[in-house]
Amino acid sequence: MHKELLEDIGEKELIKRLAKFMPKNQISDDCAFIKNINNDLLINTDSLVEDVHFNDATISALDIGWKAVASNVSDLISSGCDKIIGVNIGLVVPPKTDWAWIKDLYSGINQALDNFGGSILGGDCSTGKEKVISMTIIGIQGEIKLRRNSCRPKEVIMTTGIHGLSKLGLMIKSKKIFDSNIYLTQTLIDRSIQQFCKPKLQPKFLKQIMKARPNKSFKTIGCTDSSDGLFQALNDLSIESNCKAIIDYKKIPKHVNWPKGHEWDKYYFFGGEDYELVFSLPRKWANNLLNSNRNISEIGYFTEGLPSVEFTNLKNDKFLKYKPFSHF
Amino acid sequence: MHKELLEDIGEKELIKRLAKFMPKNQISDDCAFIKNINNDLLINTDSLVEDVHFNDATISALDIGWKAVASNVSDLISSGCDKIIGVNIGLVVPPKTDWAWIKDLYSGINQALDNFGGSILGGDCSTGKEKVISMTIIGIQGEIKLRRNSCRPKEVIMTTGIHGLSKLGLMIKSKKIFDSNIYLTQTLIDRSIQQFCKPKLQPKFLKQIMKARPNKSFKTIGCTDSSDGLFQALNDLSIESNCKAIIDYKKIPKHVNWPKGHEWDKYYFFGGEDYELVFSLPRKWANNLLNSNRNISEIGYFTEGLPSVEFTNLKNDKFLKYKPFSHF
Repeated sequence: MHKELLEDIGEKELIKRLAKFMPKNQISDDCAFIKNINNDLLINTDSLVEDVHFNDATISALDIGWKAVASNVSDLISSGCDKIIGVNIGLVVPPKTDWAWIKDLYSGINQALDNFGGSILGGDCSTGKEKVISMTIIGIQGEIKLRRNSCRPKEVIMTTGIHGLSKLGLMIKSKKIFDSNIYLTQTLIDRSIQQFCKPKLQPKFLKQIMKARPNKSFKTIGCTDSSDGLFQALNDLSIESNCKAIIDYKKIPKHVNWPKGHEWDKYYFFGGEDYELVFSLPRKWANNLLNSNRNISEIGYFTEGLPSVEFTNLKNDKFLKYKPFSHF
Repeated sequence: MHKELLEDIGEKELIKRLAKFMPKNQISDDCAFIKNINNDLLINTDSLVEDVHFNDATISALDIGWKAVASNVSDLISSGCDKIIGVNIGLVVPPKTDWAWIKDLYSGINQALDNFGGSILGGDCSTGKEKVISMTIIGIQGEIKLRRNSCRPKEVIMTTGIHGLSKLGLMIKSKKIFDSNIYLTQTLIDRSIQQFCKPKLQPKFLKQIMKARPNKSFKTIGCTDSSDGLFQALNDLSIESNCKAIIDYKKIPKHVNWPKGHEWDKYYFFGGEDYELVFSLPRKWANNLLNSNRNISEIGYFTEGLPSVEFTNLKNDKFLKYKPFSHF
């Protein structure tokens, strides 16, 4: 198929084409305009770098667009966002990039925004050696503030879903099947690729916890997302809230076909990019929520003590020695 | 001097150090929180890419930090921003980057924010092959909307200052002195390097035009900044406002020591990164402003006609054939 390279279409034409992906918020102007805000705001930036966060071999531009939005939206959800306003995009691409790639990226971004709410507000596009999508999202803070530092001893620790799927999806897509003796069911394969390429989020989470709230005086709860893996999420909550997490290994919700073994525990707890919520609530509130939402699992509790994550019902804790991915 | 590379200090320590540059807005959390907004907002993203927008040979990390903020603030000022709220930073750096570079970058960012207003709200940091600083700024829309599409025929075209200095500064710093027969005065050299490395902006512009306003019913004026050069600014205004700009070449304000000649006109009109404002006002308003602000110059007027930029009192228009820099 004929490639239409950016260096051939030129900057002016590119800007004209990109403008078509933006609704009227983007004034034909030096910056974008957001009308009539009357709230507390949440703002977050996530950058995706080629060959660090994605590459053409494992994920399409359409899915990268979706995922860039999803990872930003997930940070807003895990802070108690009520409504997404929109995103600004700082895009860096080499001059040899095919226009079709950019078009798909922006289509994926708009697909995700149609799904989660909000629109593309504005942004800029520059040349560079490698692709970088730096996205900044703005949303409105809802009534309950979800914060990493707000977990309290005696609270029940819960999570909204199962982990490890995105990591497995990545390994399947990059053809790094690490354990050839393991049989993976098609359901697990499909679900993992789905979670890696086009992750689902928990956009109704704030409404669910508000509905389950036994007392309107509760305004803050301890919460984060598992974008850096379940273990990291638990660790962050315990450090920021200055208490100890006790996790019951038996209660950890796994995909019904998830294989057993040390390596698989490592992928489960350290895989990342699952975008589930990890949070804690007082017992009564937790019970209300667990009774009304079957996808939410109780996995442990917080107790007083030095910040740490401890496991019960765990025979082989070898996977805990794993050092998670570090950029530097 | 001993270099402290990011790959040696590690990601956790880096995040801890970066947090020290952010005031309390940055919750120890998934995203940043902005309290109690009750306004229309302006939002803008500018990305600076190594070897495209800057390189270590010509500009220090401290100045890059300042300039990243300045180029973003300039877009807000040229839209009529009343108050800067803050910036989110998407930083990409190679693992071999010296911590001192990052520290200087963030110091420069905070110096600029101390000067222009606002603070670092949050952001993220990733690894990559080349440095990218993608900055998103948020500010509050003031009472008068400054927009590219709001110039009207018969209005006086003005600019807040002289152009070409930043381009000359870049050429001096990169040792590309293009015309060895020209003597540059030390005043011009110093002023040019200053404008290239640590550009001044026009933060009081909105107040000045509001003060000069003869009638409070005027709520919108045509304006942009000259970050892409004076000619581009005039061209953008005429296209977006659908009218013709007539510029009197003799009225163009130049540095007293600015050399004459075709090449120097090219740098003057196409250099870019001067961050002056280019705008138009009805005659009475213009006169009020010109009488009270000696740095502002009248350079022409808009008239009905096909969007274009025409010059009077110009003998040699060869420089107008110049094709400005394009990313692609």
